[in-house]
Amino acid sequence: MLKLKVKPLGFPVGRRLVLINEKDATSQGMRMNDRVKVEHKKRRASAFLSISGSCVEPGVAALSQEVMEILEVEEGDIIALSLSGRPPSFSYIKKKMEGQKLLPEEIRSIIEDAVNYNLTDLEIAAFLLSQEFYGMSMDEIEALTKAMVETGERIDFGRPAFEKHSIGGVPGNKVSLLIVPIVASLGVLIPKTSSRAITSPTGTADTMEVLAPVEFTADEFREIALKVGGAIVWGGRLGLAPTDDIFIRVEHPLGIDPRGQMLASIMSKKLATGTKALVIDIPTGKGAKVENVEEAELLSSQFVELGRRFGVRVQCGITYGGQPVGHAIGPALEAKEALEALQGRGPASLIEKSTSLAGMLLEMAGVTTRGSGKELAEEVLASGKALKKMREIIEAQGGNPDVKPEDIPLGQYTTEIRAPCDGYVTDVDNHSIKEIALAAGAPAEKGAGVLLHAKVGYKVEKGDPLMTIYAERESKLTEAYNVAMRTKPITVEGMLLRRIPDYT
Amino acid sequence: MLKLKVKPLGFPVGRRLVLINEKDATSQGMRMNDRVKVEHKKRRASAFLSISGSCVEPGVAALSQEVMEILEVEEGDIIALSLSGRPPSFSYIKKKMEGQKLLPEEIRSIIEDAVNYNLTDLEIAAFLLSQEFYGMSMDEIEALTKAMVETGERIDFGRPAFEKHSIGGVPGNKVSLLIVPIVASLGVLIPKTSSRAITSPTGTADTMEVLAPVEFTADEFREIALKVGGAIVWGGRLGLAPTDDIFIRVEHPLGIDPRGQMLASIMSKKLATGTKALVIDIPTGKGAKVENVEEAELLSSQFVELGRRFGVRVQCGITYGGQPVGHAIGPALEAKEALEALQGRGPASLIEKSTSLAGMLLEMAGVTTRGSGKELAEEVLASGKALKKMREIIEAQGGNPDVKPEDIPLGQYTTEIRAPCDGYVTDVDNHSIKEIALAAGAPAEKGAGVLLHAKVGYKVEKGDPLMTIYAERESKLTEAYNVAMRTKPITVEGMLLRRIPDYT
Repeated sequence: MLKLKVKPLGFPVGRRLVLINEKDATSQGMRMNDRVKVEHKKRRASAFLSISGSCVEPGVAALSQEVMEILEVEEGDIIALSLSGRPPSFSYIKKKMEGQKLLPEEIRSIIEDAVNYNLTDLEIAAFLLSQEFYGMSMDEIEALTKAMVETGERIDFGRPAFEKHSIGGVPGNKVSLLIVPIVASLGVLIPKTSSRAITSPTGTADTMEVLAPVEFTADEFREIALKVGGAIVWGGRLGLAPTDDIFIRVEHPLGIDPRGQMLASIMSKKLATGTKALVIDIPTGKGAKVENVEEAELLSSQFVELGRRFGVRVQCGITYGGQPVGHAIGPALEAKEALEALQGRGPASLIEKSTSLAGMLLEMAGVTTRGSGKELAEEVLASGKALKKMREIIEAQGGNPDVKPEDIPLGQYTTEIRAPCDGYVTDVDNHSIKEIALAAGAPAEKGAGVLLHAKVGYKVEKGDPLMTIYAERESKLTEAYNVAMRTKPITVEGMLLRRIPDYT
Repeated sequence: MLKLKVKPLGFPVGRRLVLINEKDATSQGMRMNDRVKVEHKKRRASAFLSISGSCVEPGVAALSQEVMEILEVEEGDIIALSLSGRPPSFSYIKKKMEGQKLLPEEIRSIIEDAVNYNLTDLEIAAFLLSQEFYGMSMDEIEALTKAMVETGERIDFGRPAFEKHSIGGVPGNKVSLLIVPIVASLGVLIPKTSSRAITSPTGTADTMEVLAPVEFTADEFREIALKVGGAIVWGGRLGLAPTDDIFIRVEHPLGIDPRGQMLASIMSKKLATGTKALVIDIPTGKGAKVENVEEAELLSSQFVELGRRFGVRVQCGITYGGQPVGHAIGPALEAKEALEALQGRGPASLIEKSTSLAGMLLEMAGVTTRGSGKELAEEVLASGKALKKMREIIEAQGGNPDVKPEDIPLGQYTTEIRAPCDGYVTDVDNHSIKEIALAAGAPAEKGAGVLLHAKVGYKVEKGDPLMTIYAERESKLTEAYNVAMRTKPITVEGMLLRRIPDYT
């Protein structure tokens, strides 16, 4: 074991790296890329070794930002460095790689090592890809959920919490900004934790952030939610089921989302906040995460069963996800549309979906009888009570409660895509719309996005605007426009799609 | 696009990293971990972005050693940096992840991107794990082989080359050090490229390096081989099928070795040196890579068919791999044993295996008739002609041709493992022997390893030495001894293995 003085590398390198002098390395028989254990007081991180003859003196360990943060060390602190083998949980990952089922304690061991940074991204990828290839049994998913809850923080609101979650995949899905105030305005506690966009143009947390801050400690979150009966915060700072964030770092670059892992991730976060009843939104349709109703039904039954095992009442709403929800896609555009909808000026698809899901929660909470929830939600929305509650939530989270839709700044660079012919809109392509909004700069540039002027079934005439693209930078507007030209986001029937064979 | 001045980070970080100032990043809308393209003259590398406010000034790009080496740049050079998307070949990897077969041009695209450093380790892992899960058709393997050859260097010896390759997995397999001189001494050109150990205590290149240098340029290698008729060099510097090394960096940490990839890797390297006839050694038995003869036969037929598609005659030797070959495991110990065997003092298993495989090559080369190759190989060995040829090869590669076995330095720290009772040796465990030799410091510490005094079938008395462990450091000797105590490398029948139930 070496005792070395900490020097910060001062920047992140994308992995946990410790750089030491080659003399120190030789004295311990350590080699480049060896797996090492770095310890400081009670904290520990596994990391990888780099060796240099000149960039660091003997007796010093230069740590990448990733290691500094895990160990909570500063320049000059003394860390202990030693060679470490591969953690035992890797043998369980290998077991899953061979297609075998894992025992609860094996899953627990994998999750503990993941959360303690003892597994590399490659090892985590092997675990997640094995899940993707072989699937997970309900027992495995239950064990995964349990391990994910127990390795994270928990928040106790002191009374039953109700929650709503969408599995995602459909652009423009700002329904939480309506559902939370509708439900909360009737006295049902709904402390919503939400995520930022990973691959999409905006996440609920990104959209809400246009209206109010969303990053809070667990105590602040509890206080806000209990004060006004609801909140919409970013879950990322709360330490709930932290494995999820670690896994997402691998899932995202590989474009995978193993089903069992998704079930466990959602359920574990809800369990960590003491959720007693949960409505799951499963957008279903072409270009959504779930493409047909049979698949949505199977997933629903898995959610219900997983909830049952943990004493959580779950109802799933299979919703239409074949085109974007509402007209707006992108953080500011969606926040604006949600606010307009709370004022009674929202698009039908958004109102319809939000009140349906809110109604399910109201029925589960016993606020109204089965079958009357949607109507009640519509009344609350129309009465302005939901808007009033939203303003309370915005104020409690530190935003401006008097914000008007027209106050919300949108990207200053805009361009329109127009109908190439007369006809009816027969398709609005989720993937293409997403790509355009991303190219325009969403979600990092909050004013960027897409505003649809036509959706499926609309009659348009040649030259009518089909959509406006918003961007905060001219270069990104051009990029987004090029994506739109290439991907045919909106199909107008009558338009010649292709001619085969293509005689010239 | 940014034009930035190169500053070396000065150390490897385990990935291709470019660190720029946050002002430069903001000006381009670039973010942490974005995928970027770095260009300098005609060279290009994809890399990942890191951003710092203080560690690097605006206008400067700090490059990790991995990027410096690919671009061949120096401090002060000007590089062009721009955002780059995911390469199109990733969509083919996704296709394979979904279990579909790939077309030759899709495989070609993946291999080209891999070799040009356009794929991340995670993406490569997804490709290799998909191969592991779904397998590869012979058409896919053929395309993989072709793409791997064509993206690398080739060496033309001007006359047909003969080669021998072991798929590995059995410790102590130093047969190439006998086969090459036997075959070469009869005028058959055998320019052997070999590998260093990846997970094993020694590779043929590591073992040969005890006797002579093994790192050469393609020109030097050709010159040596043509001069003395044979050579044993490290393939890693020759640039033959370079994808293989890139893939191994992912396969090794995941402990995977997809069958199709293995076939393509071996065949592509042999094609790159103009091999016309190839003998493949397939060690088979408990603890080897291939555990039973049926599997070995299937693999053999695949090798033969793959060879047929490229006009290479292939013969496979299914050899006994249930325990180590010979008695010595570790670079120096194996070099010593090989030299002794060339002097006529080798263990029966080593002589038997080496002459069998050499005999196959001699028959394929038409030096002798079918069925008489092994006998001819034994004669050549017994006559001292093979030893003489080996000394020529050692000299041609720059080693000491007069080296005596007893000159070879072994680890100065040794300990013995003794028989716990009277009886017969019923098992020598490949995995355990490998672990012991690795713990002792092999392959990096060349004197480290294991010398077996007893193998399966030997009669031993309680207290007889079963093996000697050699190490260059006392601490590693202790570690290796502990591994030996824990893993039961040698089973002597009569020894009580376990008692169930275990009444006390």
